[in-house]
Amino acid sequence: MKILLVGGTGTIGSAVSKELNGRHDIILAASKSGDIQVDITSRDSIESMFKNLPPLDAVVVTVGGVHFGPFETMTEDDFLMGITSKLMGQVNIVLQGQKYLNRNGSFTLTSGVLSQDPIRFGSNASTVNGAIDSFVKSAAIELLPKSYRINAVSPTVVLESMKEYSSFFSGFSPVSVNQVALSYLKSIEGAQTGQVYCVG
Amino acid sequence: MKILLVGGTGTIGSAVSKELNGRHDIILAASKSGDIQVDITSRDSIESMFKNLPPLDAVVVTVGGVHFGPFETMTEDDFLMGITSKLMGQVNIVLQGQKYLNRNGSFTLTSGVLSQDPIRFGSNASTVNGAIDSFVKSAAIELLPKSYRINAVSPTVVLESMKEYSSFFSGFSPVSVNQVALSYLKSIEGAQTGQVYCVG
Repeated sequence: MKILLVGGTGTIGSAVSKELNGRHDIILAASKSGDIQVDITSRDSIESMFKNLPPLDAVVVTVGGVHFGPFETMTEDDFLMGITSKLMGQVNIVLQGQKYLNRNGSFTLTSGVLSQDPIRFGSNASTVNGAIDSFVKSAAIELLPKSYRINAVSPTVVLESMKEYSSFFSGFSPVSVNQVALSYLKSIEGAQTGQVYCVG
Repeated sequence: MKILLVGGTGTIGSAVSKELNGRHDIILAASKSGDIQVDITSRDSIESMFKNLPPLDAVVVTVGGVHFGPFETMTEDDFLMGITSKLMGQVNIVLQGQKYLNRNGSFTLTSGVLSQDPIRFGSNASTVNGAIDSFVKSAAIELLPKSYRINAVSPTVVLESMKEYSSFFSGFSPVSVNQVALSYLKSIEGAQTGQVYCVG
């Protein structure tokens, strides 16, 4: 398969890239490095990316920023950070990407455990993750007539990020990024649609 | 209690208003009518509303627009309709409203069944409803130190809207708005927080 991996240079993206390499033909998209550059907060940048690529069998997104901070002082602009990046970035990649997908193609997005299991300072991430979970369930039924599939991977905190984030994720059982990467593989090579794969 | 009911003139809002009247002191906010006017898509309008009101014991939102339409031709602007109105409208009312709430005060927001049970043309509504469900779960844990509570009511399609929407909600079992209004009462007068009350 020809697979576009948006965010293929981050912690999870690198593990997904490693998992897929050798099995598939991967095009890495990232903000500054990769095979092609994209700013996922810009619809024009997303459109330009797709226009410069061959037709794709799978589009995977493993990137998207959110705001972490106390709820008491959170502003609309803080909150819009995750809305514009992790939520609308991924939504726009699907809305636009559906024009560039081969038959039986798939989208695999990234949400996260906080949609169901909130932590202090995480309300923006929780909201965005919950939105992505419901987005894939709803988009799946409308992409079905073209035999397109869409799923989300919802990982808990990954081992590789625990040094930085362990104080926020007290009592969470971290998983390795390699374990998380397997769910992307399931979404891409499997036949399911409208699923949220919770890892951890 | 002194209760601000944003969207108190719509189908659900009117039923909530009827349920609460006589029990509490209600201030109705709406875009054009009501006791006070507010445009929930504008942070300035929301701020001005709160600044012109006395301290509140409960804030209830029963309003918010979403876009309905086919996924294949949906644009970012279509999708942003629900993000700006039903999602960020409610989020902004909570972010700003937390400064104007009396101790033990509560927020009650509105999501909807489509977060879990999608229909054709409903991906914007599903996404926004899923976001609201996760928002209340996460905001609840951070509002707790001030003894503020937050819940969402997630109704299925209401009987009173079936004439207009029945073709979209094939097989859904509608509930009366009076039944839905009871869940708002539970959120306002009860002691729970971080809950999504699914009605129907």
